[in-house]
Amino acid sequence: MNTSLDVLFASNKPKGEAFLDELRGKKPLFVCTIATTETAKISGISAAGKYPEFTDYTPPADAELLLLGRCKCIKGVPVTPDGIPTPALITMSALQLVDAPVLIASGGLKVKPQIPFLDLGGSPGRDIRKGDAVDNVSEVIEKATLAGQQLAKHSDYMIIGESIPGGTTTALGVLSAMGIYAKGKVSSSMPENPHDLKNAAVLEGLTAAGERFGSLSSNPVRAISCLGDPMMPAFAGLLIGAASQIPVLMGGGTQMTAVLAVVNALKSDVLCNVAIGTTKWVADDNSSDIRGIVSQISDVPILAADLNFGGSKFDGLKAYEKGVVKEGVGAGGAAITAMAATEGAITRDILLRKIENNYALLMGAK
Amino acid sequence: MNTSLDVLFASNKPKGEAFLDELRGKKPLFVCTIATTETAKISGISAAGKYPEFTDYTPPADAELLLLGRCKCIKGVPVTPDGIPTPALITMSALQLVDAPVLIASGGLKVKPQIPFLDLGGSPGRDIRKGDAVDNVSEVIEKATLAGQQLAKHSDYMIIGESIPGGTTTALGVLSAMGIYAKGKVSSSMPENPHDLKNAAVLEGLTAAGERFGSLSSNPVRAISCLGDPMMPAFAGLLIGAASQIPVLMGGGTQMTAVLAVVNALKSDVLCNVAIGTTKWVADDNSSDIRGIVSQISDVPILAADLNFGGSKFDGLKAYEKGVVKEGVGAGGAAITAMAATEGAITRDILLRKIENNYALLMGAK
Repeated sequence: MNTSLDVLFASNKPKGEAFLDELRGKKPLFVCTIATTETAKISGISAAGKYPEFTDYTPPADAELLLLGRCKCIKGVPVTPDGIPTPALITMSALQLVDAPVLIASGGLKVKPQIPFLDLGGSPGRDIRKGDAVDNVSEVIEKATLAGQQLAKHSDYMIIGESIPGGTTTALGVLSAMGIYAKGKVSSSMPENPHDLKNAAVLEGLTAAGERFGSLSSNPVRAISCLGDPMMPAFAGLLIGAASQIPVLMGGGTQMTAVLAVVNALKSDVLCNVAIGTTKWVADDNSSDIRGIVSQISDVPILAADLNFGGSKFDGLKAYEKGVVKEGVGAGGAAITAMAATEGAITRDILLRKIENNYALLMGAK
Repeated sequence: MNTSLDVLFASNKPKGEAFLDELRGKKPLFVCTIATTETAKISGISAAGKYPEFTDYTPPADAELLLLGRCKCIKGVPVTPDGIPTPALITMSALQLVDAPVLIASGGLKVKPQIPFLDLGGSPGRDIRKGDAVDNVSEVIEKATLAGQQLAKHSDYMIIGESIPGGTTTALGVLSAMGIYAKGKVSSSMPENPHDLKNAAVLEGLTAAGERFGSLSSNPVRAISCLGDPMMPAFAGLLIGAASQIPVLMGGGTQMTAVLAVVNALKSDVLCNVAIGTTKWVADDNSSDIRGIVSQISDVPILAADLNFGGSKFDGLKAYEKGVVKEGVGAGGAAITAMAATEGAITRDILLRKIENNYALLMGAK
């Protein structure tokens, strides 16, 4: 009998259990796709950075944290306006516990991380309200597919995460253009989900692009070009390249649903090898509905790391239980991975201790 | 008893045999470090490109060939002024036979390849005659070390190759600055090795930098900064990061000796895990002396793929037996790898057939 892991099955439990069983005791490669978009600077949209300009630094800082255990392009670590630290802290802690290799892939960045990263030929994204948000979508998908094929050759499975502030708004944009009902269903890193702001930005973008809800249902490349962000082609390509060979866990929340819709339209046969791995904070979120979006696209299972920071000695971590941040940088996927790789020897409590240690080190807290 | 492979031991045979045995039946990762330097444009220095400006395109074109099986940034494949094709054809054929994963790492390029590549933060190199050839050497070594550490985690061993026209001249530069006698000992891609031109360029560079033979024997970073090329810090860092965990085969000819000298000065303890893998054409070359250089630095073994293109039906391949090209893009290392991975099932003849097939496909020959 398999040891039970601190993992919940948020949808399609039988397939989710089978998928999780495939990961037990196996060696994962973690790839974090990072990018920036001007969409994140729309007032009130994102909590990933105290000031709008900070959102340009969040993805490279997250990447540095994963690879170096500290940030180089900013002091400290990325925090929300209230000082709640980046979910990269969870990811980093989980990956350290199992010594998993990490690669960073750039979809297009305003600020380059001071670490090695895979250049996939993309550029920073523009504000989706203009309806012309991302350049070279096809080329980046193609390059990322090549990279995914190569990276899959020596790993048992791959987890792909993301760091891009403003990413749920661009997800809503792509989903809407592709005819998937996601209004009021995408998640937020803030406790109060600014659905109205997101909807307004997407509507403005659709109009500017000369498109409407569902008009791009069979044109995912144009959907990203008009209303997406540069993380998406990088993530989609890596997924397509890798999942044709090995299982791939999409590490993230509702942003994953836009990538899922894109891959479903481009190469749906690889999805039999794919699951979403998120956190309990996303799966149980009352202000979003990941299941409701996924069910319109595919039957890929949704796994959720059953984390609980309620007992943490740090207020900055306890805040996660109040719905702040929730997910990002593949935190949920990395947590699931650490549990699966060790056949459950790493529990949510052991993981929390590791996160608290890193929190203390990096935030100077005691 | 082990099957014998078509591999020669050019120095330190006992250690070479032990190293080769470690690679048998194992899964390699091939990393090709690419970069450009203005040094390649000194008249008469390099055969890697018919006109000096072509040398900017050779490394990205080689990289595209490895990853795509064809070039995108140029028509056809890189050729010498006489139409002899790039050794990337050997590398590509060897890696295809064993389905080895390939990653491209850029040390600094004038022309970017149209494929995914690891950005290590470097810039294109300048003419060494000015004595100020490479920027950010320490930073690139540091980033490449991080990348090497991550990439080593899931591979049994790593082969690192290079593509940089002008690389034997910059190798002579770094070796001379570090006090290693390499005058008349570095190899050439041309049948007539232009030793005088190389020596003159290095002397001019040493003087311009205010240095002399051996004055930088304990300062490899400055040796590269003044007289090296941007492939070197990328290669050295990857080697340091990976060889602390797994065996690393340095795929190349006399250019490898400069990297070896650098790593020996920075972190000599990793060299117990390192061998040079080159071709018979370099090992048997009368116009250069790889053994004579290596013996001044370290006892790392030199393996040489015992290739023979004398029986080929294509003149462009037969020319290799006349001392044209000789090595590059990790050709020797990749050939050794294909033989070792298959326990000798891939012989030099099987490899030649594969190379001929690819030659016919890419050169339109029959």
